[in-house]
Amino acid sequence: MNQIPVAVLGATGSVGQRFISLLDNHPWFKVVALAASDRSVGQKYSDAARWVLNEPMPDYARDMIVVPATTDAVQAKIVFSALHNDIAKDVEPQFARAGSAVCSNASSYRKAEDVPLLLPEVNAEHIHLVKIQREQRGWSGCILTNPNCTSTGLTVALKALDDAFGVKKVFAVSLQALSGAGYPGVSSLDIIDNVIPNIGGEEEKVEWEPRKMLGKLVDSKVQLADIIFSAHTNRVAVIDGHTVCVSVELAQPADPEAAEAILRAYTAPESARELPSSPRPAISVRSEADRPQPRLDRFTGKGMTTVVGRVRRDPILDLKFVVLSHNTIRGAAGGSIYNAELLVNEGLL
Amino acid sequence: MNQIPVAVLGATGSVGQRFISLLDNHPWFKVVALAASDRSVGQKYSDAARWVLNEPMPDYARDMIVVPATTDAVQAKIVFSALHNDIAKDVEPQFARAGSAVCSNASSYRKAEDVPLLLPEVNAEHIHLVKIQREQRGWSGCILTNPNCTSTGLTVALKALDDAFGVKKVFAVSLQALSGAGYPGVSSLDIIDNVIPNIGGEEEKVEWEPRKMLGKLVDSKVQLADIIFSAHTNRVAVIDGHTVCVSVELAQPADPEAAEAILRAYTAPESARELPSSPRPAISVRSEADRPQPRLDRFTGKGMTTVVGRVRRDPILDLKFVVLSHNTIRGAAGGSIYNAELLVNEGLL
Amino acid sequence: MNQIPVAVLGATGSVGQRFISLLDNHPWFKVVALAASDRSVGQKYSDAARWVLNEPMPDYARDMIVVPATTDAVQAKIVFSALHNDIAKDVEPQFARAGSAVCSNASSYRKAEDVPLLLPEVNAEHIHLVKIQREQRGWSGCILTNPNCTSTGLTVALKALDDAFGVKKVFAVSLQALSGAGYPGVSSLDIIDNVIPNIGGEEEKVEWEPRKMLGKLVDSKVQLADIIFSAHTNRVAVIDGHTVCVSVELAQPADPEAAEAILRAYTAPESARELPSSPRPAISVRSEADRPQPRLDRFTGKGMTTVVGRVRRDPILDLKFVVLSHNTIRGAAGGSIYNAELLVNEGLL
Amino acid sequence: MNQIPVAVLGATGSVGQRFISLLDNHPWFKVVALAASDRSVGQKYSDAARWVLNEPMPDYARDMIVVPATTDAVQAKIVFSALHNDIAKDVEPQFARAGSAVCSNASSYRKAEDVPLLLPEVNAEHIHLVKIQREQRGWSGCILTNPNCTSTGLTVALKALDDAFGVKKVFAVSLQALSGAGYPGVSSLDIIDNVIPNIGGEEEKVEWEPRKMLGKLVDSKVQLADIIFSAHTNRVAVIDGHTVCVSVELAQPADPEAAEAILRAYTAPESARELPSSPRPAISVRSEADRPQPRLDRFTGKGMTTVVGRVRRDPILDLKFVVLSHNTIRGAAGGSIYNAELLVNEGLL
Repeated sequence: MNQIPVAVLGATGSVGQRFISLLDNHPWFKVVALAASDRSVGQKYSDAARWVLNEPMPDYARDMIVVPATTDAVQAKIVFSALHNDIAKDVEPQFARAGSAVCSNASSYRKAEDVPLLLPEVNAEHIHLVKIQREQRGWSGCILTNPNCTSTGLTVALKALDDAFGVKKVFAVSLQALSGAGYPGVSSLDIIDNVIPNIGGEEEKVEWEPRKMLGKLVDSKVQLADIIFSAHTNRVAVIDGHTVCVSVELAQPADPEAAEAILRAYTAPESARELPSSPRPAISVRSEADRPQPRLDRFTGKGMTTVVGRVRRDPILDLKFVVLSHNTIRGAAGGSIYNAELLVNEGLL
Repeated sequence: MNQIPVAVLGATGSVGQRFISLLDNHPWFKVVALAASDRSVGQKYSDAARWVLNEPMPDYARDMIVVPATTDAVQAKIVFSALHNDIAKDVEPQFARAGSAVCSNASSYRKAEDVPLLLPEVNAEHIHLVKIQREQRGWSGCILTNPNCTSTGLTVALKALDDAFGVKKVFAVSLQALSGAGYPGVSSLDIIDNVIPNIGGEEEKVEWEPRKMLGKLVDSKVQLADIIFSAHTNRVAVIDGHTVCVSVELAQPADPEAAEAILRAYTAPESARELPSSPRPAISVRSEADRPQPRLDRFTGKGMTTVVGRVRRDPILDLKFVVLSHNTIRGAAGGSIYNAELLVNEGLL
Repeated sequence: MNQIPVAVLGATGSVGQRFISLLDNHPWFKVVALAASDRSVGQKYSDAARWVLNEPMPDYARDMIVVPATTDAVQAKIVFSALHNDIAKDVEPQFARAGSAVCSNASSYRKAEDVPLLLPEVNAEHIHLVKIQREQRGWSGCILTNPNCTSTGLTVALKALDDAFGVKKVFAVSLQALSGAGYPGVSSLDIIDNVIPNIGGEEEKVEWEPRKMLGKLVDSKVQLADIIFSAHTNRVAVIDGHTVCVSVELAQPADPEAAEAILRAYTAPESARELPSSPRPAISVRSEADRPQPRLDRFTGKGMTTVVGRVRRDPILDLKFVVLSHNTIRGAAGGSIYNAELLVNEGLL
Repeated sequence: MNQIPVAVLGATGSVGQRFISLLDNHPWFKVVALAASDRSVGQKYSDAARWVLNEPMPDYARDMIVVPATTDAVQAKIVFSALHNDIAKDVEPQFARAGSAVCSNASSYRKAEDVPLLLPEVNAEHIHLVKIQREQRGWSGCILTNPNCTSTGLTVALKALDDAFGVKKVFAVSLQALSGAGYPGVSSLDIIDNVIPNIGGEEEKVEWEPRKMLGKLVDSKVQLADIIFSAHTNRVAVIDGHTVCVSVELAQPADPEAAEAILRAYTAPESARELPSSPRPAISVRSEADRPQPRLDRFTGKGMTTVVGRVRRDPILDLKFVVLSHNTIRGAAGGSIYNAELLVNEGLL
C-alpha cells in the first residue's frame, strides 16, 4: 500500500505520545520521523520518552531515533505538531514553506485569518482557506490548526444547535482533565483532594475559538459567529476527558426533547463523514441522569465522539446540558489527524 | 459556668460527627445526648460510629451511650438535627412541640413559611419568624433551618453584592465535595479519575433557597428575592469544600474592583457578628489567580468564612467569580450551631 | 460456528460486568443467560446493572432479561459464577449436579480437596481433579475455582521461580485496587488521600491459596507446597490492578539476573498455552526502575499477563521484586474464562 | 520572653513551609531569617513561596524578605535546613563553622560518624556526639540530622520492641505520601489511579539509618545495631503520612498482646520527654482492625506521635504490624525542631 509519510514534532510530550499511539496502524499514514528537543535528539524513542499513556508504546516507535525539529532532519508530506506555542510559532512556518502540511495542536496560528481552525465535523469547508494561505504566503505546504481541547466538544454540540435553532449566548464552565496540562504538568500536591479554579489563558480561548469555527466562510474569509461566550475553566483530578457544563440562549427557543433529537441526528459534512478518524457517531446523547462522566464515556467512538447529556431547560437562558470530549484524542492529537485526513480527502495535500 | 444542654440527632453520620467535633469545648453548649438509629442505640458512641473526620473523636463523646431520637430519651434545650429528611419531617416537630429549639440541617422545613432558613451573617433578622412559628403552631420550642451546603457560600457572597448593587440573575456551577453525600455516600469507583455531573435534587435547592434568604421580611413574612438562578451541580474528588463558579447580573453594574471592595468589607448584621461561631471575617477575598482552592482554603476562619476569588468581568452578565465554603462546617453543622447561638443571643431560646 | 452456551451468575456486580465484557465476541462461548438477585430479575440487563467499567456495555447484553440464578432459569454448559461466597456455597453445587461446569470466582470451594484451584499457566494438570470430583459427588457437571486476585499474579511469578530454584519462604505486601471490593465497595471518603491497611480475610487467603496451586498432584490429591507465606494486604486509591511487593527465600539461591531470565522465559504448560485467553506472554518482566505500575501496565497481554519488575537482592531472604496483575481480568473473570477454556480443551466438559 | 533567634534555609520548599508553620508561636524560638535560592532572594516571602500546606501561611512570615543561604545574610543561633542534599553538603558546614547549630533535614551528613542522627524519643543520648564533632572539626556550631521520613516512625516502634525483646530482622514495605517528594514533586499523571513502586535511594536509607539510631553509644562512637533490614518503598496517592507494613524477628519471641503493651507504655528518654515538640504520647497503639490510616491518624499528637496498629503474629518472623508517621511533621520539620529543643535542653547550644 502507498502510505503517506508523516512526522511528529514534539514527539516525547504527552500530546506527542498520543499522536504516536493513534498513528499506529493508520490506514493512510506512516510515521517516518519523530522529532523532539535537543535533550532527546539521537536517542532511541523508547529511551527519550517517559511514556504516560495507559496503552503501551507502539512497537514501530520504540527504536526510532529522535531527530531535531528541522526541515533538514524531518522530511514528510504531513507534519503533526505537538510543539509548545512559542517554538511552534517559528518552526511551523519553516515546514509549511518547505512543503509540508503542518497539522498543529499549538495555538500560535489559530487566530491567523488565512489559517483554518478546524473541526472537520463542524466546519470542514474552512479547509479551503489553505488555498488563500498558500497564495498569500507563497508556501507549497500549509498550516492547519485544531482548537483548544475545551472548545472542541463544546463547539461540536453548539454546531448542531446553531444549525437548527441559532445560538446567541453561551455559558461554559469546564472541569478539565490533567493531561491537558502536559507532562509533568500539574503537581499531585495541587490536585489531590482539590480543584484549581483557573487555567491560564484558557477562558479567552474558549470565549473566542468557537466563534471562528462556527463562523461562515464568505469571500474566502471567516466571519466570526455572532455569539457571546462566558467561560470559567477549572482543573480537576481526572486523567483524561474534559467535562463542560453549558447553558445556551437560542434564537428560536427549543425544548429539551427537540434539542436532544437534533444533537442525536447531527452528522459531519459529507467530506468529513467517512474518514478513518471520523467520530462514529459525531455526537452521542446520553439519557441517564448522571452522564456523561469522563472515566466511563471518554472513549466513546474511540475517543472521537462528543458526548452530551442532561439536556434540560435553563431558567435564565434556554437550555442547559453537559458535554464531554476526550481532550488528548478528539481535543488534540486525534483532531489533528482527522484534519490531515480531510486535507488528503479534499485533494489539498 | 452555666452551659446550655444540647443534643445531636443523627449523631453517627458524617454531619453528626461534625456537630460532635465542633461542639467540643463550645463556650455556651454542653452535649448531653447523642441520638441515632435503632442499630446504634445502647452502644457506646465510639463503638457505634465509624468516625470519618481527620480530627480525632472528642473525648467527651467516646463513652456516651447512644439513645433513640425521641423526646423521652433526649432532653435538651437545643437539639441539633443531622437526620435524613424523611425522618426529620416527623421527628423535628415532636421536639419543637416538646419545647426544644431544633436547629436542623435537614431540608424538610426549609420551605415552610414560618420556618427561618438562616445564615446569620446574611439574614439574622429572619430569626424572628420563630415567634410566628410558635404562635401558629402552639409550640414552646421551634425549628430553625440552615440551607443546603452549596447555597451557603453562594448566598453569603450574593448578599454583599445585592446590598451594594442589586443582584438580578445568577449562574452557579458547583464542584462539590464528597462529604456532602454523607457516609458511605459516593463509591470510590464512581469518583476516582472521574466527575459525576449531577447531584439529585441539588439544582432545585440552589435555584430556590438563596431567594428566601435574600428576601425581605415584610409583615412577618419573607418575600422571595426577585432573582433568577440557574444551577449546574457536579461531584468531584474532593473530601471537603464546595467550589462554585458564579456569574451575576447586577441592577447597577459594578467593576470587579468595586465588587471586591464590597465583598471584603462585608460584615454580618450586628446581632450575628460576635457569636462564638461567627465567621472571622465573614468573607475573605483572595487576589491570586488560582484561588480559592478547597484543600488550601476550606479552613479559612475555622471553616466558617466564605472565600471568594477571581472577581472579573463577565461577557454576558456583569461579573464572574469563584466561591468556596466548607460544606460540613459552614454549610452544615457549623451553620446550625451558629443559628443556635443567634437564637440564644436574641433571647429567643 | 458451534458455540458453547454459557451463563453468568451475579451478572450485575463488578465481576459479573467483567465477565460480560470479556465474553463479548468470545470465539468458543456464547452467553445465553444472565442471572442476578431478585431485585434485578425480569429487568433488561441495561436497566438492572449500574455499569462501572470504562469500556461500554456490550450490545449483546443490553436487552437480555435478567433471570434468577436457578438451574430452571439458567441452562448452559458452562456457568460463570460471580456470586457472593455465602450464596455461591448453595447455588454452585446445584448447577454442578444439574450438569453445568461451574467456573467460579467465589472462595467457597477453593479449599475443597476435590475442587481444582486453578491458574492454567501454573497448574493446568490440577484440572484432572474434576474427575475425582464427579466420581465422589456423583455430579455430571463440576466446580472449578480461581484464586483470590492478590494470589493470582504472585503465584504465577512464584511458579516460575519454584520450578527453577525452589521457593521456601515468601513475604508479600499488597497494594490492592478498589475494584477488588466490588461495587459500591469502598467509600470515596475512606480512600481519597488515604490507605486502608487491611482487607478482611485476604491475608489468610494469600498465605494459603498459593500453596495449593503450587502443590503437586499425587494420587489424585494435591499436596500443599511446603512454602511459608507472610502477607500484609492494603487498599489504595487505584481503580484496577493489584501491586504486590514480594521477598522470597529460595532453595537454591539465584542472582537477580538469573531470576529475571527464568521469569521471562516462563511459559504455560502446553495444554494452557494456546487457548483464547492464554496470557501472551505469561510473564512480562520490566527492566525500568519504577515499573510495573497499575495504570500503565495492567492491560499488558489484554490484562491476562503477570507483570514483574524490580527483581533485586533481598538482604534477609534471597530476592525482592514487584508483581502486578489485573485483579478483575486475570484475577477474576478472565481467570475463570481461561479455566473454562482449559476444561473444554482437555475434553472434560 | 527571651527567645532564641532561628532561621530556615530552603524556606520556600514544602519542608521549608512546614518549618515556618511549626515555628509559628514556638515558645522558645523566634524566626529571624528565611533563606532560599537566588530566584527568591529579595522578594517578600508571601510572593516567593507557592504555599502548599492546608493551614494558612503564618502572618509573621508573609512580609519577611527572603535572603540568601549564607552566613553573612543569616545570623541565627539555630539554623533549620530544608536544603537539597547537594547544596546542604557545602552550606551546612559553613554555618556550623560560623557558630550556628544546624538542625538538618538533608541526608548529606547522616552517615558521618561524629554527626548525630537523632530521634529524641529514641536516641536522645546520641546528641552528645556534637561534643566530639566540635572538638574534631573545630566548630563552635554543629550539625544535627534527623532521619529520612520513612525510617522515622519505623525506628520509634522498633526502639520500643528492641528495648523489651531485642530486634533481629525487619521487613518494611512503605506506602509513602506525595509531600515526601517535595513540590512540585510527583506529577499528578503519575499517581492518580496509580502506585509508583520505587523511590530513588529510599530503600538504602531505610535499610541503614535505623541501625545507627538504634545503635549504642560506646566510647563516643555509635555502634550500628546488629539488625538486618529489607525494604520496599512505594509512592501512593496520599498527601501526607507514610504508612509502613513491618514484620520483625525478635531475639526473645513475644506475643502480640505483650508487644502492644510494650509499645503503648513506651516513653521518650527523660531529657526528651517534656520538650515543646515532644510527641504526646510517643506511640499511640490502635486496636481497630483497619488502623492506622494516613488521613485519619497522621495528626495524632499534633503530627509528632508514631501510630502503630494491627500488631499480630507473623508466620515467617515473629510479629507483623503497621506504622504511620506524619512525614513532613515528625519525619521532617517537626523532627528537626524537636532535635533543636533537645540541644537547648541539654545545654549544648
